[in-house]
Amino acid sequence: MFDIFNEIRDAYQRIHAQIRKTPLDYSIGLSRLLGCQVYLKCENLQYTGAFKARGAINKLLSLTDQQREQGVVAASSGNHGAAVAFGLKKLNIRGIIFVPENAASTKVDNIRNYDVPLEFYGTDTMHTELYARDYANQHHMIYISPYNDPQVIGGQGTIGLEISQQLDRVDAVFVPIGGGGLISGIAGHLKTASPQTNIIGCLPANSPVMAESIKSGHIINMETKPTLSDATAGGISPNAITFEICQKLVDDYVLVTEDEIKQAIITLIKNQHLLIEGAAGVALASLIKHAESWRDKNVVVVLSGANISLETLKNCIIPDPGY
Amino acid sequence: MFDIFNEIRDAYQRIHAQIRKTPLDYSIGLSRLLGCQVYLKCENLQYTGAFKARGAINKLLSLTDQQREQGVVAASSGNHGAAVAFGLKKLNIRGIIFVPENAASTKVDNIRNYDVPLEFYGTDTMHTELYARDYANQHHMIYISPYNDPQVIGGQGTIGLEISQQLDRVDAVFVPIGGGGLISGIAGHLKTASPQTNIIGCLPANSPVMAESIKSGHIINMETKPTLSDATAGGISPNAITFEICQKLVDDYVLVTEDEIKQAIITLIKNQHLLIEGAAGVALASLIKHAESWRDKNVVVVLSGANISLETLKNCIIPDPGY
Repeated sequence: MFDIFNEIRDAYQRIHAQIRKTPLDYSIGLSRLLGCQVYLKCENLQYTGAFKARGAINKLLSLTDQQREQGVVAASSGNHGAAVAFGLKKLNIRGIIFVPENAASTKVDNIRNYDVPLEFYGTDTMHTELYARDYANQHHMIYISPYNDPQVIGGQGTIGLEISQQLDRVDAVFVPIGGGGLISGIAGHLKTASPQTNIIGCLPANSPVMAESIKSGHIINMETKPTLSDATAGGISPNAITFEICQKLVDDYVLVTEDEIKQAIITLIKNQHLLIEGAAGVALASLIKHAESWRDKNVVVVLSGANISLETLKNCIIPDPGY
Repeated sequence: MFDIFNEIRDAYQRIHAQIRKTPLDYSIGLSRLLGCQVYLKCENLQYTGAFKARGAINKLLSLTDQQREQGVVAASSGNHGAAVAFGLKKLNIRGIIFVPENAASTKVDNIRNYDVPLEFYGTDTMHTELYARDYANQHHMIYISPYNDPQVIGGQGTIGLEISQQLDRVDAVFVPIGGGGLISGIAGHLKTASPQTNIIGCLPANSPVMAESIKSGHIINMETKPTLSDATAGGISPNAITFEICQKLVDDYVLVTEDEIKQAIITLIKNQHLLIEGAAGVALASLIKHAESWRDKNVVVVLSGANISLETLKNCIIPDPGY
């Protein structure tokens, strides 16, 4: 395991002028509702609308001059793609983003905003990713993984560092898990800076790949179902460094249903008037489900992103006519 | 006219540690859509979910020790009530908030969050306000107007001061107008610090009291219709100091329909994944309506608040079945 704690410290030096130090907001409404002291780490207000900007910027700022010259490749239909594009534009680095042909047009527009070359390939993320890796190899460019990379994890970990600065005692942090980059970074800081803090991994029951992998003792391949938490959906690379980090540093896992995610999104609209995407809803839903265990404690929910489409929002707030 | 510019400078010293310096976010999506450089002043992210926290805190911090002892009275069913309650709790001052009996329960809950005494009186804001003023007189307490008060205006004006710090050249600022406290403050700073900046007052066509009053040369009483912009709806006190300030400092007025407000709220969800209340929608709708006039210019839209109810949000994003 690489030295995550120091990578995060270095990452913070590199990126703090480029990213937003997001608020850690105490929520009176949620605290009353849930019987614990609820703090929201608002990465939904991060540039690009999600925490991924931190990891991408840290990776890009860690490149050697020669690597910068070579240029950068990423594959993503979502927040990682926008984050890398945002970084490329900001730092004036050459690169290309590959996107699955069937990616949602709102997400594609979000990447296009940054004026970075974008190409469509394949109809599922795995194919697009393999193609992008191959393209990077053939063109001697640098491929940036969305989570399987020490500097990407280090960038995400600056969220943990900020939480330490913003709140003295943190009893638990609820973090959504997909590939595990976000929770690896946050745990990588907090388990050193504040070992008593419980790190809770939050997953949609429809795509609980990391939780099932940890249970099995190795990264597994499994069928997953569609989920509102598109940002955490899908498989994990067989060589992912996040697996070992989660094994060592994550204290517990919570799985939530699609209906619980919906209810969490609605609860946040009603109490905070903030929009969050499904993955952030997973983290809040997990706290809501286990609030009893944290009575009167200081708990942080990482609102990982805001990028929910209008259609998905409609589906969340309009009762299903079949109910 | 009191010395607004200096009141705002003093207000900033008083309140900057108590309120949030909100982001002035460049919106790539809106800029492309509208053909001008669009910056969003995010008072929707202010404590209490609206700019009113600034004026209330400035007023409370301006009280003499004796006045603090006397305690404070406010009347409001909305953002002003929550702002005063927030300030009372934060500064540990005694006070009471009067609320109309028919106020929406979500708004009442928002005030109750701050553990300040709350009493119901009357069934329209005007009655509640008269009763509250009378109560303050009888009990030798300090009544805090939502807009007709130099310190309240000074507090709101710190938004203008922050905009000056955050953006070098501001060609126009779009600001919602109800009683006129917000625009008086913002114009009170900017018309001195940056006289070339155009100050555009934005009103719902269903309740355009200040715009009609300016046209008439005096504050008028008029019938108003219900509007999504509940925070700017209703009449203006006959002695409002904001009238003269608007007369002198506001360059233009824009009126928008209810459908234009809805569309603005949807546009912001799609482009920025932010929730705004109707009054903020009025400001964005006004820019959308007049974007042609500001081609390639730097324009700021003041997103005055986020406090939209789930019901109102549903009504905005679900197409009317009659369409």
